[in-house]
Amino acid sequence: MKLDHTANGVYSIAPTPFHEDGGIDWNSVDRMTDFYFEAGCNGFTILGVLGEASKMDAEEALALAARVIRRAAGKPIIVGVSAAGFAAMRALSRKVMDMGAAAVMVAPGAGLRTDDQIAAYFRNAVEAIGEDVPWVLQDYPHSTGVVMSNNVVRRVVTENPSLAVLKHEDWPGLDKITALREWEKDGSMRRISILVGNNGLFLDFELDRGVDGANTGYAFPDMLVEMVKLSKAGRRDEAHDLFDAHLPLLRYDHQPGVGLAVRKYVLKRRGVLSSAAMRKPAPAFSAETRAEVDYLLTRLAMRDPRATQ
Amino acid sequence: MKLDHTANGVYSIAPTPFHEDGGIDWNSVDRMTDFYFEAGCNGFTILGVLGEASKMDAEEALALAARVIRRAAGKPIIVGVSAAGFAAMRALSRKVMDMGAAAVMVAPGAGLRTDDQIAAYFRNAVEAIGEDVPWVLQDYPHSTGVVMSNNVVRRVVTENPSLAVLKHEDWPGLDKITALREWEKDGSMRRISILVGNNGLFLDFELDRGVDGANTGYAFPDMLVEMVKLSKAGRRDEAHDLFDAHLPLLRYDHQPGVGLAVRKYVLKRRGVLSSAAMRKPAPAFSAETRAEVDYLLTRLAMRDPRATQ
Amino acid sequence: MKLDHTANGVYSIAPTPFHEDGGIDWNSVDRMTDFYFEAGCNGFTILGVLGEASKMDAEEALALAARVIRRAAGKPIIVGVSAAGFAAMRALSRKVMDMGAAAVMVAPGAGLRTDDQIAAYFRNAVEAIGEDVPWVLQDYPHSTGVVMSNNVVRRVVTENPSLAVLKHEDWPGLDKITALREWEKDGSMRRISILVGNNGLFLDFELDRGVDGANTGYAFPDMLVEMVKLSKAGRRDEAHDLFDAHLPLLRYDHQPGVGLAVRKYVLKRRGVLSSAAMRKPAPAFSAETRAEVDYLLTRLAMRDPRATQ
Amino acid sequence: MKLDHTANGVYSIAPTPFHEDGGIDWNSVDRMTDFYFEAGCNGFTILGVLGEASKMDAEEALALAARVIRRAAGKPIIVGVSAAGFAAMRALSRKVMDMGAAAVMVAPGAGLRTDDQIAAYFRNAVEAIGEDVPWVLQDYPHSTGVVMSNNVVRRVVTENPSLAVLKHEDWPGLDKITALREWEKDGSMRRISILVGNNGLFLDFELDRGVDGANTGYAFPDMLVEMVKLSKAGRRDEAHDLFDAHLPLLRYDHQPGVGLAVRKYVLKRRGVLSSAAMRKPAPAFSAETRAEVDYLLTRLAMRDPRATQ
Repeated sequence: MKLDHTANGVYSIAPTPFHEDGGIDWNSVDRMTDFYFEAGCNGFTILGVLGEASKMDAEEALALAARVIRRAAGKPIIVGVSAAGFAAMRALSRKVMDMGAAAVMVAPGAGLRTDDQIAAYFRNAVEAIGEDVPWVLQDYPHSTGVVMSNNVVRRVVTENPSLAVLKHEDWPGLDKITALREWEKDGSMRRISILVGNNGLFLDFELDRGVDGANTGYAFPDMLVEMVKLSKAGRRDEAHDLFDAHLPLLRYDHQPGVGLAVRKYVLKRRGVLSSAAMRKPAPAFSAETRAEVDYLLTRLAMRDPRATQ
Repeated sequence: MKLDHTANGVYSIAPTPFHEDGGIDWNSVDRMTDFYFEAGCNGFTILGVLGEASKMDAEEALALAARVIRRAAGKPIIVGVSAAGFAAMRALSRKVMDMGAAAVMVAPGAGLRTDDQIAAYFRNAVEAIGEDVPWVLQDYPHSTGVVMSNNVVRRVVTENPSLAVLKHEDWPGLDKITALREWEKDGSMRRISILVGNNGLFLDFELDRGVDGANTGYAFPDMLVEMVKLSKAGRRDEAHDLFDAHLPLLRYDHQPGVGLAVRKYVLKRRGVLSSAAMRKPAPAFSAETRAEVDYLLTRLAMRDPRATQ
Repeated sequence: MKLDHTANGVYSIAPTPFHEDGGIDWNSVDRMTDFYFEAGCNGFTILGVLGEASKMDAEEALALAARVIRRAAGKPIIVGVSAAGFAAMRALSRKVMDMGAAAVMVAPGAGLRTDDQIAAYFRNAVEAIGEDVPWVLQDYPHSTGVVMSNNVVRRVVTENPSLAVLKHEDWPGLDKITALREWEKDGSMRRISILVGNNGLFLDFELDRGVDGANTGYAFPDMLVEMVKLSKAGRRDEAHDLFDAHLPLLRYDHQPGVGLAVRKYVLKRRGVLSSAAMRKPAPAFSAETRAEVDYLLTRLAMRDPRATQ
Repeated sequence: MKLDHTANGVYSIAPTPFHEDGGIDWNSVDRMTDFYFEAGCNGFTILGVLGEASKMDAEEALALAARVIRRAAGKPIIVGVSAAGFAAMRALSRKVMDMGAAAVMVAPGAGLRTDDQIAAYFRNAVEAIGEDVPWVLQDYPHSTGVVMSNNVVRRVVTENPSLAVLKHEDWPGLDKITALREWEKDGSMRRISILVGNNGLFLDFELDRGVDGANTGYAFPDMLVEMVKLSKAGRRDEAHDLFDAHLPLLRYDHQPGVGLAVRKYVLKRRGVLSSAAMRKPAPAFSAETRAEVDYLLTRLAMRDPRATQ
């Protein structure tokens, strides 16, 4: 099942489970795969930043993709294929699509500045991965350093029919969503799926602005699923209530670097991962940080029973 | 009254009130000055980023400083003097200190990279402003692009006895606070005041980590004052409860660019400013944004009566 | 006399002459003004990077402009007015134009990324300086960090009729010249003057590609004048011979930071400046550097008598 | 034969020869290997930026390394292993060292800012590649965006005994060489080999300052070899004469992006490569550019017969 512009709901971003010694923890890989679907996700993405993709070699990346795709048994798995060059991007894309991946995710290459450079990059990327491969455009300037105006997003959408999803994580980004949705309405841009990232820090209002769902790694994907449902059902205040209960943790989790360690720790506490280990170079996860996360979870448990265990 | 390393409590960051035509709104300047002190702030900072300092010419900046310092009647006013060159920095510093400012605020110059470059920059800055002038070091990598390690902060503190306050707004930054406080305890760094910025997005835990207060522009400085008091009184859960009530708005307000417009809008709604106008180039403040802020204020009012009017 | 799109020949970029104690050396200012015109320059630019503009305060900048413009007695002086904000840019522009400046020079503000941001910036800048003020667009990504595609240059040219000159110092930049000249020929862009900067490191081929002259600070502006003449006269090999003789020094002079010190040193050796002093923060000018410049001048003197004294 | 701190002379940086269809041109790989040694190089480096390493996938990179190392028959080959993550760096390093590579080259990872970050990065890199593997530290801020002060270079040298060579391509960088050499003399830094890159744009004075040779990709490695010999023999003027003859081309060749295309074109004209093809995304190589290179070679041939054919 391939991803297309009707994608909606929640596609989590998955970490890569490691043992303390840095080896891949295959049992946790399986458990995590089951967890996301049980939580109500429509699919999930592997080998993104949260997946520590840059710390794995080419063989490991393929092995992980193979295991996850097999376990998902036909449900959609998206694979991050961003790479320093198109040859590596092509090699990984072709292999994971053959394995049955639903789509690949591509971020703009480092150093792109002008609109023309950005547009050319994605035309080349699409040529590399194949024009029949659906893909997710990652618009995350804080991480990539590449800033895409509304106009250049529209241009990339228009020039590349295989683009299925915009993973929107620009900041501030609310008015960008409104602008793109208006262009879809007035026919000046074809309809795409917009799923939000950035840990969902603005998911409450992004849903109000018309996104189709989330594609992010917050450690409570089940809460993201419920939020999207509440919002789609028009139960706005309840959606905001749920969001506000999670915001203290979500904001904490959103910190670059250490946020990945926090998410792995929470997923371990929730029984999904056997270990919160990260590969080097790993951010520090101090005793103070851990105590703060525990405190946040205790407070959250008073408002959401999902945080209890 | 000069600022020194015992500074604590809340020093707000003030906007510059403008009329719709871009002129300075002097009545609002006075009202705002009174407002901050009535809200319980110990002082406040003008001519920072929130103050749209870069959109004012040299004469306007001096006129604003003169008016605010006179109105503050001896209570401490900090003046941002960051400039592209040391001559402009010197000129402004000397003049506002003569007017009675309590301290100046200096951010690292654009483009600094190595530890040696950063240390040299601040030695030159101190020579320019005068070694007798107390100053606030602004550590805000997201805005300045300059990243200061714990070690380089300590070096700048040690090399410059006139540094009184660290305006801490690194992100993630909690462990940096802990590291600096430990160095103070073990005697490897002299005691300074640490006040946090970054809109207070982590003020809850920053207080737990031992900061002396806040130096930031969130539109409810009265709430910041109460938080600091609760925390200092050891009433941790209540401090977090208050913080969590404000977090949805605070997070919204924290957006770069549009966040300044939001803060001016909230200050106008609170009766402090006559107009929310910003000088060009101003961020867009869309109808959707305004409606979202109104919604957030309505929700906040259910938990904090300060948001009612 | 105002600058317009017919500008051609050589407009040097001038340093600001300082005494050893950092004060402005007014006698050297006069001598330098005379020197540039005696060397055959059509005009020159003050308060650029080479002019250490960021190290001068607002009053000094105006005093320098007044002195130079008066001394130039009607010959064209261009004034750099790039500033962190439009208020300062407006204030300086209005004043120097009133004094009789021929044009102002504007670089894109730090941090601009997308085509739309760049275009908006220059529309705002033109509104600030006044639509009747001719201006030079500085396209120098290495220094400003702002990358302008061919398309965005054309857009800025088209949207701003008061743009008279493109100071071209993109790198690599030869094909950009050819592209812009072709657009002028096919009518898709109006004719502008293109003068090259970047110390003239590619002036030999830039002239072949069709630029109108140079607007750069190499310490032998008389050689630049001769090169432009040779090239316009179709004496290509001779132009290249002259250029190649100077290239070893020109390349040395082109180093960021220390290159400014080198140029001032050479201008001092040539009798133009009384001192090579720079204001703080000044690049190091080591004994080894000085000996290398002397060696380069000795070698150059064997091929060009201008380097003899 | 492993590289160590006595490395000197010329180690060229090699392109990867491609056919027009993008496949690796193995015959040219062999011819190029022979060419570098016939030109007098002591060794050469593959899989650097000039080698278009980022455009090759993992298997191709290994195949190229295997072919070159075998053909070099014991003479030293350095392999660029810079990668987004340590797992890929380790995998490539281990494999090429097993094949018989003399050393690996490591550039600092993107985004490193503080001294502590840089030092930590290289300690992690050395742990990844193995502490017994000699390596070349690439100090090339213009390309990597990472700025290393003299002090941080010394720190990396001191903390990592397996560092054999500094590939010096900082700009401006002459005083850095002098500072490092002085530290070696006064015993505050151990002796390392310093080989210069940056296309040799300052090789004339870098040799005067005491470097051990060159490690760069200028298309006349035979000229680099002669220059190093002249300099070591104390024939300074002759070294500069030779350098000055090549400087017009060398400067042209030094342009980022298109410079790679120029070097491949010159190597093709010299009979080393069968094709000047680059893989996508390739810089434009316009007809004007080609004509300019031909003109430069014609002019160079009048002063150096190596440019004749």
